Amino acid sequence: MNTKILAELTAIAGPERVTDAIEERLCCSYDGGGRECLPAAVVHPADTEEVCRIMALLHRHGVPVVVRGGGSGMTGGAVPVEGCVVLAMAGMNRIVEIDTVNQLAVVEPGVITGDLQAEAARHGLMYPPDPASAAFCTIGGNVAECAGGPRAVKYGVTRDYVKGLDVVLADGRLIRTGGRTDKGVAGYDLTRLFVGSEGTLGVITGMTVKLVPRPRARATFLVGAADVGVAAGLVAEILADFTPCTMELMDETAIDLVRGRLPFSLGAAVRALLLIELDGGEAAVRAEGAALADFLQGRPGVLTVRRAADGRRRDELWAARRTLSPAAFDLRPHKLSEDVVVPRSRVAALACFLRDLAASQGLTIFSFGHAGDGNMHVNIMLDRADSAEVERAREARRRLFARVIELGGTITGEHGVGLSKAEFLADDVGAAALDVMRRLKRCLDPKGILNPGKIFPDAIS
Amino acid sequence: MNTKILAELTAIAGPERVTDAIEERLCCSYDGGGRECLPAAVVHPADTEEVCRIMALLHRHGVPVVVRGGGSGMTGGAVPVEGCVVLAMAGMNRIVEIDTVNQLAVVEPGVITGDLQAEAARHGLMYPPDPASAAFCTIGGNVAECAGGPRAVKYGVTRDYVKGLDVVLADGRLIRTGGRTDKGVAGYDLTRLFVGSEGTLGVITGMTVKLVPRPRARATFLVGAADVGVAAGLVAEILADFTPCTMELMDETAIDLVRGRLPFSLGAAVRALLLIELDGGEAAVRAEGAALADFLQGRPGVLTVRRAADGRRRDELWAARRTLSPAAFDLRPHKLSEDVVVPRSRVAALACFLRDLAASQGLTIFSFGHAGDGNMHVNIMLDRADSAEVERAREARRRLFARVIELGGTITGEHGVGLSKAEFLADDVGAAALDVMRRLKRCLDPKGILNPGKIFPDAIS
Repeated sequence: MNTKILAELTAIAGPERVTDAIEERLCCSYDGGGRECLPAAVVHPADTEEVCRIMALLHRHGVPVVVRGGGSGMTGGAVPVEGCVVLAMAGMNRIVEIDTVNQLAVVEPGVITGDLQAEAARHGLMYPPDPASAAFCTIGGNVAECAGGPRAVKYGVTRDYVKGLDVVLADGRLIRTGGRTDKGVAGYDLTRLFVGSEGTLGVITGMTVKLVPRPRARATFLVGAADVGVAAGLVAEILADFTPCTMELMDETAIDLVRGRLPFSLGAAVRALLLIELDGGEAAVRAEGAALADFLQGRPGVLTVRRAADGRRRDELWAARRTLSPAAFDLRPHKLSEDVVVPRSRVAALACFLRDLAASQGLTIFSFGHAGDGNMHVNIMLDRADSAEVERAREARRRLFARVIELGGTITGEHGVGLSKAEFLADDVGAAALDVMRRLKRCLDPKGILNPGKIFPDAIS
Repeated sequence: MNTKILAELTAIAGPERVTDAIEERLCCSYDGGGRECLPAAVVHPADTEEVCRIMALLHRHGVPVVVRGGGSGMTGGAVPVEGCVVLAMAGMNRIVEIDTVNQLAVVEPGVITGDLQAEAARHGLMYPPDPASAAFCTIGGNVAECAGGPRAVKYGVTRDYVKGLDVVLADGRLIRTGGRTDKGVAGYDLTRLFVGSEGTLGVITGMTVKLVPRPRARATFLVGAADVGVAAGLVAEILADFTPCTMELMDETAIDLVRGRLPFSLGAAVRALLLIELDGGEAAVRAEGAALADFLQGRPGVLTVRRAADGRRRDELWAARRTLSPAAFDLRPHKLSEDVVVPRSRVAALACFLRDLAASQGLTIFSFGHAGDGNMHVNIMLDRADSAEVERAREARRRLFARVIELGGTITGEHGVGLSKAEFLADDVGAAALDVMRRLKRCLDPKGILNPGKIFPDAIS
């Protein structure tokens, strides 16, 4: 790192919070997707005002900036680029306010999502977005990527909970978007332009998020179906009459992975699993739970229905879903993990395609995920030491994306584009929309210093 | 209108659908807010492809374009500007598809919102946004303004229901944003950038909107309270435990307006009314309705509780709210009608402020609206023939906006900025955010031909 710039950074943030030591640079060099690159330096800003001064400095010098939360992203959004400064936000982790009357929280970006969920719960409230990484990801990263999770079918995704943002622009100026109200149409929706923009348009230094009343009751069902077509059909039928908060589907390869690890027997004929959860008020959940049990009873293709009567039983049912990701590495040492989305009517078609794809490429592929909103996690297993298998896996991924787009879906539902999907973005959104995105990027970051190389397949400047 | 351009427009859209006749120009000269301006010509496009060709032509010649739906907007969004061509979208009114499995509709922008609601209902579904003008406004206008309505406290606003858009850019190029899936984070959220952009960034020619299962049951309560503080307190308490779809508040001046017009007596001591509606499944609404009745029973400051047991009774309760706007003109011949928002904890503070404001300005001011989300409709009554009263009303409006911003709210919750609030936008969003909006406008409409003069207080180019 240029020593003059490092000295200027140190003058702003103090010697304790600016470093080019290799240990700290290594700690900020990766994300959850497996890519790595060493940054030139790491800064831990203390507050928004400091971020403004840091950005003004780096903008003046044209130094690239990569913002980092928990580093748990899957597509490279937080992976450094050559010569960049990492803004490590984990220290800006205050829950500034929980407002129970207006049902909102004001938080700094470094707050761990699970900590916000727990604090909301202590006030009788819930922050619904629930990415699998909630225990270690940050709310700032969730906003930057527009994180989802298994409750989205009822509650929506991060974008639906962001009411307002403090954003430091590329040149160091601060803007405040949205606010404390749910409604608001004063000018363009800048809030949602920054949500999901993956650190390429500004540095988010504060946010006001919506909370909802914490559901008092819950009913959980694990349904064993004869095949994925039956399960996908159930999803559509159930959503016509019920509003479950979760509808998680596991395909047959996924089931075979966890079969021996569960505290109950799945039954050999079960080739698809559906985990369904209702939540809400006591009376409503009791009534809806009974109606759902009736609906499932004797349904063609439904082989088993297990229902959780208490928290321990619920954890057992969720075990089927939770043991899946670790179990995958029994199959092969590595995986390509994708978060494609199809219209929910095409989930069964996607499953058929995946079966054929696995056979034709000689690969193990399993899928599970949020069938209620068509957002399936497709895992293509491989051994990175086997270059032929790596090439077949990459080809499978290309075919997967092409098929998903054909089915009216999208290549990413909650992980973002980052580095790993940039080359496929034009296929998904079209050349004209991509051009508009490029123009917006140039408009807000004319020097191209904010997370360069992310989202867009080529340099923007 | 320049005859050469008119001839080129006619060559694209045909002589039946292009005109500079005064009758048609007059029909497109106004909106619901009372402003007027004659356009130079009116074109009724047949489809997206035609809009592309029209925009390419008008862009080449630098002719301003104002898009028009039902003309029911309140802030001047659809009011023509000098020398402009109006794109009248009412003829592009096909409901292309209702997809019951994926719970969505594909529609053209000229579809009347009420027609979409009715068609969705025929399929057992609901399109929740419900502006007061639903019987004659268009879905395209709703998207352009991000319309709201009384169900927003549970269901959200138009932005929450737009999954994808076809947008013709200023230069005639077509982009498609979003799609048929609920989730999707492939690149920037262009969909929500166009929602609420009031025709200043592109011409919306098609949309995919989300539908939800139609609620099977409903319970309606009309609560008479001792004052607006009691009513506002109830709103917060109820929202901590219930999820009503509607929480409409009427202040004492509003009550006095409708008192003699209702099929029941309100009781002289009632100084605030709260209309509460629950909806959902039969069993859930039965259980929640009983719990809400219990909650209201004997609550301090709650003077009367009426509950609708059937549709006719429900209409009676809603009559209190529905007769209000027409009744207002008994007071004075004109009104300034504002749609300010405050955090719901500040609704009572807003009501106190309005009482003082009315007294200090010697005006009649009444308010009603969506107390659940803090979006209150404030009506400042006046006679336009009385220039001193007009000036007092304008001053009252300025003070109202300043107070709303002080209370942490915003100057517009669902009507948009248009012409009428442009001068106040900087006070609301701040100079830096306004500058970002200006840059986005320039980026997408460099020649400044799309609805010039709207949103921004001065020309952009």
